[in-house]
Amino acid sequence: MTLVNMESWKVELVKNLLKRIHEGADPESLKREFGEVLASINPAEIPLIEQQLVREGVPIQEILRMCDLHVALFRDYLVSRELRGVPEGHPLDLLLRENELILRQAEQLGVVANALARAGDEEAGPLLQQLRVLLSNLRAVRVHYRKLQMLLFPYLERRGIVAVPRVLWGREDQVITKLRALLKRVEGELPPEEAREVAREAAGLASELAELVFRENKILFPALWALMSEGEWAAVAEEARKIGYLVEVKEVWGPEAEPILPYQAELRVEEGSLERVPPEFRAAAAWAEPDRYKLVREGDLSLGTGFLSPGEVKGIFRALPVEVTFADASDRVRFYSEGRLPPAFVRTQTILGRNLLYCHPPRLERLVRETVESLKRGEIDYREFWTRIDDRVVRVFISAVRDEDGRYLGALEVVEDFTEALRKPEEVLKKVVVL
Amino acid sequence: MTLVNMESWKVELVKNLLKRIHEGADPESLKREFGEVLASINPAEIPLIEQQLVREGVPIQEILRMCDLHVALFRDYLVSRELRGVPEGHPLDLLLRENELILRQAEQLGVVANALARAGDEEAGPLLQQLRVLLSNLRAVRVHYRKLQMLLFPYLERRGIVAVPRVLWGREDQVITKLRALLKRVEGELPPEEAREVAREAAGLASELAELVFRENKILFPALWALMSEGEWAAVAEEARKIGYLVEVKEVWGPEAEPILPYQAELRVEEGSLERVPPEFRAAAAWAEPDRYKLVREGDLSLGTGFLSPGEVKGIFRALPVEVTFADASDRVRFYSEGRLPPAFVRTQTILGRNLLYCHPPRLERLVRETVESLKRGEIDYREFWTRIDDRVVRVFISAVRDEDGRYLGALEVVEDFTEALRKPEEVLKKVVVL
Repeated sequence: MTLVNMESWKVELVKNLLKRIHEGADPESLKREFGEVLASINPAEIPLIEQQLVREGVPIQEILRMCDLHVALFRDYLVSRELRGVPEGHPLDLLLRENELILRQAEQLGVVANALARAGDEEAGPLLQQLRVLLSNLRAVRVHYRKLQMLLFPYLERRGIVAVPRVLWGREDQVITKLRALLKRVEGELPPEEAREVAREAAGLASELAELVFRENKILFPALWALMSEGEWAAVAEEARKIGYLVEVKEVWGPEAEPILPYQAELRVEEGSLERVPPEFRAAAAWAEPDRYKLVREGDLSLGTGFLSPGEVKGIFRALPVEVTFADASDRVRFYSEGRLPPAFVRTQTILGRNLLYCHPPRLERLVRETVESLKRGEIDYREFWTRIDDRVVRVFISAVRDEDGRYLGALEVVEDFTEALRKPEEVLKKVVVL
Repeated sequence: MTLVNMESWKVELVKNLLKRIHEGADPESLKREFGEVLASINPAEIPLIEQQLVREGVPIQEILRMCDLHVALFRDYLVSRELRGVPEGHPLDLLLRENELILRQAEQLGVVANALARAGDEEAGPLLQQLRVLLSNLRAVRVHYRKLQMLLFPYLERRGIVAVPRVLWGREDQVITKLRALLKRVEGELPPEEAREVAREAAGLASELAELVFRENKILFPALWALMSEGEWAAVAEEARKIGYLVEVKEVWGPEAEPILPYQAELRVEEGSLERVPPEFRAAAAWAEPDRYKLVREGDLSLGTGFLSPGEVKGIFRALPVEVTFADASDRVRFYSEGRLPPAFVRTQTILGRNLLYCHPPRLERLVRETVESLKRGEIDYREFWTRIDDRVVRVFISAVRDEDGRYLGALEVVEDFTEALRKPEEVLKKVVVL
């Protein structure tokens, strides 16, 4: 990106505004004064203006401090007109606020990275340390992307809009992959030349981060706002709690509609909503073929986090890489799994209904009794033992099974072979890949 | 045990018979000739007679070779009259044959152990090697005990006879514990003095093994034979296949009754059977209070290896030390578990019904697709990946889920934290205990 597209008087104006902010002027009153001009400026170009300021002698630390204010200055550009009605505390409101934060951090990263890329050998050290801190803070950006990937994209997919979320996820993934690689490279000390090279890549990352912010704010979010119902947003708000936000949630949004998860409805692009969808999105939305997969089938078990047929439950226990035995609250064996692997402890149908204590040699009776009693009293949630079976090392994990209200339903024994991990950890660690 | 209780003419007779067997005489014709006398001799005393023979100059290797024949000689004593009607291939028949094998091995162990205990420094080495082999072969005895502990004792417990199986299991456990300790001690070379001490303990183990054989054959088995119905034995025969036998199963027993597992019936000591129960067992049997626990409850899922209520299924998935996600045969996510631990990969209700491929970044799409396709085509049963999540190392285990007939039901992702095992294997191995 260059400044070629920007008239030079605008550049001068922005530089001037930034300087005035730096001298203490209130961004809000500047906005009132220069609102119209500002709205026509793409904030993606700010980093380039900042570089000019640095070259004109404004210290980097001053520029960094200003980044917080720039976002305020350009908020009108950042949040498109269609999104003005989003209630405070609504998931979309919080996502927009997260994007302000990300943009600020990206801007700071850009300033430091550009400075480092041009720095002399003796300045490189302290700038690298600043870069390290900024990159490390950016790790949290995954929390933002995850909400898009896990909470919002499914609502698009359900409507048959599949390509757009795939492309966005691809970009987000690139950002995360680059961030990871950069974090690895700056782990130790670097010679100045390499530090400058890392800085050039970090500057690239900063632009990508900012660009994603603009894409979301200008295209994705307006589209979601046009397409999704209040009930869908209510479900997003609920599930988002498992992931969390990068920003403080001050105002809690209280939706009136019941939450609707993607599988709970046949979702489609409503006729009326199409025109409110940004043009970049319209073709995809217009041609989308709704997904009609029915999740819940006759006879399914409702498990709170999904639905399984009895046959699937059976199959899943068989497929687990662990051996499971369950005794209920009266210590009777009610179930054991038969795995694919030769069992660590043989279990047979004759032990069904048997008292847990009688399944062990008398030598272990006290240990078993005490463990189960501690589980029942809630003193512990689980206890693990490590033992040898022939030449294998296995973990015996004894866990309380409780219902949603914490009531004791029984004890679960989970036996698992750890031989490979314990005997050849280096070889296992060699297999580690980035997923 | 000493020979004090045995008249000296009997000792001489047995020594004579053993010598004649050693010279090639047929045990069966000797049995016909001396049947009545033999029936009055306790085979537990044979090892002591053998020691006399060794002292009188019969080489140990000859005595060892005879051990096979002694058991034939004393079979009438070994198998009590009440058990004569047991059909060939019946679980009890096979258990009796296992006991013949165990007795023979115990006898050999006794011979070698006693010889080593008295051996000079230069003979100790080869005898120790023999001892090592015999002890190692005896490991398999667990297969015998396991059938008692897992298949037969539950039928006694269900009838309210609890103490007898506990005591027997205690003895069996002692034998196994001693065997394990001895195997550990003879792992490397030993100075002669220590070898002799080990030998004395091994001789003790040999007597304990033999004594258990007699207890089972004289007390436990006749009691079970009197108490258990054909259907119960049919279930034992079926389940015993999972454990296996120490002896070759030539004749397959074909019961006429339907198998009855302990939980499937309210079992009691029938009036008529009490008098056929050996006296040592009678009091316990007469006073036993039958166990009335009902395994199967209204609404339970029948899982082939047990019964669980939907609430228990939910609770078990929550209690597992692994994270589970399941997508069905059409690649749609149908279930994920929420564990006690912070999740490695966040999953939310919005992914229910979602296409598996869309749950990953596009970068992994090919890998996911290829893995799932190989599972579907049955080329592989599972595939594992190791990866890092922040500072944790996790295994991602992708497994096919199939029904009993091998039909593909879906793919299961099992994610588990292996950080501790991989990073501090020595510390985990330090926790290993004998269970």
